[in-house]
Formats: sequence, C-alpha cells, structure tokens
Amino acid sequence: MRLHVQNYAEESLFAVTPAQVAAARARAPDLTGLEVSFADDDAGFALAMRDAEVLLTFTKVVKARFQPGALPALAPKLKVIACTSAGLDRLAPFDWLPPEVLLLNNRGTHAAKAGEFAIMALLMLASRMPRIASNQRAERWESLFGSVLAGRTVCVVGLGTMGAAAARRAREFGMRVIGVRTTPAPHPDCDEVHATASLDAVLPRAEFLLLACPLTPATQGLMDRRRIGLLPQGAKLVNMARGAVWDQDAVCDALEAGALDGAVTDVAVPEPLPAGHRLWRTAGMMVVPHVSSDDPQTYNDRTLDILFQNLLALRAGKPAPNRVDPARGY
Amino acid sequence: MRLHVQNYAEESLFAVTPAQVAAARARAPDLTGLEVSFADDDAGFALAMRDAEVLLTFTKVVKARFQPGALPALAPKLKVIACTSAGLDRLAPFDWLPPEVLLLNNRGTHAAKAGEFAIMALLMLASRMPRIASNQRAERWESLFGSVLAGRTVCVVGLGTMGAAAARRAREFGMRVIGVRTTPAPHPDCDEVHATASLDAVLPRAEFLLLACPLTPATQGLMDRRRIGLLPQGAKLVNMARGAVWDQDAVCDALEAGALDGAVTDVAVPEPLPAGHRLWRTAGMMVVPHVSSDDPQTYNDRTLDILFQNLLALRAGKPAPNRVDPARGY
Repeated sequence: MRLHVQNYAEESLFAVTPAQVAAARARAPDLTGLEVSFADDDAGFALAMRDAEVLLTFTKVVKARFQPGALPALAPKLKVIACTSAGLDRLAPFDWLPPEVLLLNNRGTHAAKAGEFAIMALLMLASRMPRIASNQRAERWESLFGSVLAGRTVCVVGLGTMGAAAARRAREFGMRVIGVRTTPAPHPDCDEVHATASLDAVLPRAEFLLLACPLTPATQGLMDRRRIGLLPQGAKLVNMARGAVWDQDAVCDALEAGALDGAVTDVAVPEPLPAGHRLWRTAGMMVVPHVSSDDPQTYNDRTLDILFQNLLALRAGKPAPNRVDPARGY
Repeated sequence: MRLHVQNYAEESLFAVTPAQVAAARARAPDLTGLEVSFADDDAGFALAMRDAEVLLTFTKVVKARFQPGALPALAPKLKVIACTSAGLDRLAPFDWLPPEVLLLNNRGTHAAKAGEFAIMALLMLASRMPRIASNQRAERWESLFGSVLAGRTVCVVGLGTMGAAAARRAREFGMRVIGVRTTPAPHPDCDEVHATASLDAVLPRAEFLLLACPLTPATQGLMDRRRIGLLPQGAKLVNMARGAVWDQDAVCDALEAGALDGAVTDVAVPEPLPAGHRLWRTAGMMVVPHVSSDDPQTYNDRTLDILFQNLLALRAGKPAPNRVDPARGY
C-alpha cells in the first residue's frame, strides 16, 4: 500500500515528518507492505499522486488540489484521503469527492487537549475571567467574584470527541451535564441527553452552554438570536465548534446588555479575525485564535495512530472508524 | 459565651447575617449558651465590646479599631478575635494583640474555590491565555499553541489550604508536583517536598511555579530577581499569595524579555492596582483583582463552620485549629 504525506511549505509546526511516521509504525500492530513518500511542493505532489493509494494531508491542500471532477485524472489509484483536521466543513460541498474514494477525518486526536480547554473555559467563566480581562484592558480593578462549578448546569451541544471530553471533565468538577446531539441516545458522560430538535426546551436551564458540534447545514446558525434569548440571565458560553454555529453579533449584543455574563470562543467569522472587528472589543468576550484542541507536541503522533487504526480496519474488511459521510458532512 | 459579629457599612457582599449564623448553629454539634450580637457601626461596636468574649470580623475592622495598647480598655472581656481572612499579614506587627487574646484566621474556607482557581490558572498558562489575552488587547490573531498539563512539573510554594488544594488538582491532571514549605515533611498531594531553604535547587525544574504561601518576613520578596532568573526558559507563574512575595518588576521584565512565558496573578502591590500601572500592560501578565479564592455564595457558611469548630475545640480544652502564632504571622 502506498501512502503519500503531503505537507506544504508554509507549515512547519504541524508538518508530518518521516521520524513521526516511523515511530507510529513501530506502535502499530502490523503494517508490512506500507510504503511512504513525503513532499511539500507541487512537483512532489504530482509525482506521488500517480501511484498513491492513501493520501494524508491538510484540508487546505485538499481544497486547493481537488477541484470538482479533477481527482480521478490527478490520482487514479487513490482510495483514501485522510485529513489532519477533525472538522472538514471547509471541504463542503463534497462534489469534488468521487464516491469510490473514502474520506477520513481526524476525529479523536483532540480529546485530551480539548477536554482541558473545555474545563479551563468553564472555570474561567465561573471565575468571570472574560469580564476581568476586559477590565484589564480598561486598567480597572473591580472585585468581580465568581463561584465554584459544583452543582452548576452545563449544556454540551455535540457529543463527538470534543463534546464528550468536555462532558467528562465537567462531571469531574461536580457539574450537571445535559448533552444535546442529533439523536438523544444516553451517553456515559452526561446526566441526560436530548435531541437537537429539543434544544429550545433545554436552553433555559443552561447556566453554561458549550458548543462542540460540527458545522453542517443543520448546525449553521443553530444558536441564533432567538435561542440566545432563551438562555438564563447571566449565562456563560463556550464555542469550540465553528463561529457560524452561533450568531456572533447577537452574542455580542447580549454581552453588552448584560444578559450574558461571559463568553470564551476559540472560533470566529472570519478567521483570522481582522483588527477592528467587534469581537475583539466586546466586554466579556474572550477571543482565542483557534488553538483550543491542538497540542503540537503530540498532535501528529495521535494523527498517525488514528490513520493506521483506520488502514488496519480497512485491511481487515471492517468499516473505517473515521469515515466522513459526505451527506452528513462529518 | 457572647459572640459579636462586626460588619461594616460599605461591605454588603460578604457581611455575615443573622440567618447565616442561625443556619451554621443548626449544623454545629452543640453551641448552647452562645449569644450573638450584630452591628455595622461605631456605636454598636462600642456597646458590644463591653461584654463580648468572641469577635468575628474583618481584618479591616481589627486594624482600624485596635491600635497598640487600646484593646484591654475597649474590650475587657474579649478572649478570641476571629478574622474572615485566611492571610492576616495586614495585621502585622502584632504589637496591638495582648498575649491573653487568641487570634484566629479563616484558613480552610478557601479550599474548593482556591483549588479550582489554581487549576484554571495552570490550564490557562498551558494554553498561553495570558499571551492570547494580550494579543486580544492588540486585536492580533496569532496561532499560539499550548500543551496539555500531563507530564509537566509544577512547583507549589506553601502547602496550606490553598497550596494543598492546588497540588491535589494538579495531580488529578497528571502533573508532577514539587511542594516547598518551611519544613520538608512529605505531603500526600506532592510527589516530593523540599524546605524553603532549598528553593534555589528546585526552581530550575519548575516549568510552572505557583505561589500560595502566607506573606511573612520570611517570604517577603522570596521570588526576587535572582530567583526568577533560576526558572527554566518559558516558565509560567501563578501568584495566589501576596504581591510582595515576588518582585513584580522583575516578573514584568522577564515577561517582556520572553524569559517567562506567562503569569496569572490574583494579587498586586498596591491593591487596588491604579490605572496606568505597568502590571496591567505587560504582555503575558493576567491581572485578577484578588478574588481567586472567594465564592460569595458559600463563603460565610464555611467561615462560620470554621469559627464554631474552633469554639467547640476551645470549650473542650483543645487547641484551636485556626490559631495564629503572632511570631510566625500565620
């Protein structure tokens, strides 16, 4: 099996190296017959795509290289595209993807870091750090007291890797966790789970709301102005999903009116957020530059472990755990 | 036994109320014979002090009312002064305190909130939030990636209620915890414990340093410029002690030079920190207005439980757990 790793020249921090691949192979049960090539330029990509069966790369590369209809001619033997991101919304619509090519995301790599970011954000909101940081901008010493997390309720929207890791940490700190996802099946890290269709009924109880769902047509604008209005007075928000899942302006309005106490967002529309944008300046809004779930020291190791688990599953005739359903978008 | 509770007019959030005292009495084993009075003004204080045997109040009140030599005439029957603060450094030197009057601090009330603040601060530093907040002030989107806490080393200076709670949480997140205190006796929440006299030898290993010691003549200026220079490149600091425990200017210099990666401080010199002070503006410095360990929703309940535990111990002829040794200062 021929695996090609396509980096790109501007990416140094997260480039996948031969040493990382060798170490991951040593950890994997049996990958005999796997041949691996590396490139970070146009010529290397074109050459490798003649024979590659598996491509490991960045969503940015996929988007740039595979225009609709282009893939079969460029990469005639390609069977699997594995992306280093967990959320592949940047590749939608998936009209560029031939049905016989399997698309894998990187769901699972973010669990440890995402869980830590989630509980950090909840603790920061309980301690009113976004308001305190806004006061620091104004050089104002104001005794804003917070509370402990125990006994408070958090609603976690999306129970994938990140949402589940957030729910688990929240429970460790004594919070009551309400999970929300497409189907309301019970979840071991939630006290209760509701369908997304029942979100309106849950929001009035959400002292804390944490968004960790994929961005799809179904979640675009999910937390619109009307639903933000359903949250209790002084509610606290975390967005680890995508900026388009909430109405950014409605959140800023509610923070300015004091209806929301604080928000920590790892995502924004647009990214990178330009200087002068309202999000930077809204009191109670903490802007994090889309780094919540990535730990460069260990990211590629987990990425490669996940890829190899999927390749071994396929080799054994089983479904690939990280397969993306183009119809759902995740 | 006559207990007097002296509030003061400007304090509303933390004033101790008759309802809170009644609820705490209901929780305590047996406090028959306890009579309780309340006041928040001069006249009420003067009247109550004629007969009070126990005074529960704020350090601010003690400092204002009991000038050196004044106490015996003002409060001839007073045997116990219980303060609502854990750190009584504001009352030093203790020349105003007659040797026959017992001084109690509020050590223990801060455990839950302090532990949460400590782990929040460590997570924020691992995720580089102080630098990210500085970037937000400059409206600059910069991908500053962080790491998980597991496997990193934190040095906790001071193993009282706050330090121990911090150590416990840090261990829950997989950190290696080096405790530092006056005597190097082992501690259940630390991997190793060293004497303060050995601090220099420990600092080069302190990727994270968390200060939670009382401010005393022995800890004043403990983290001076020389010791800050012993920390590893990119070290991260938390100060939950007092601003005078570290050299504020040396910390700011090291942050500006990039020798330190970030700092979260709940304390400052002076407090309140005035607008225009360097601490507000130093990149990588997160200023919190001395609220880390106080949860108004539960603070007085714990304060009263601690006071009543001490009164019951004294009544049983045992030492009071919260007795302050004026010679040590805590």
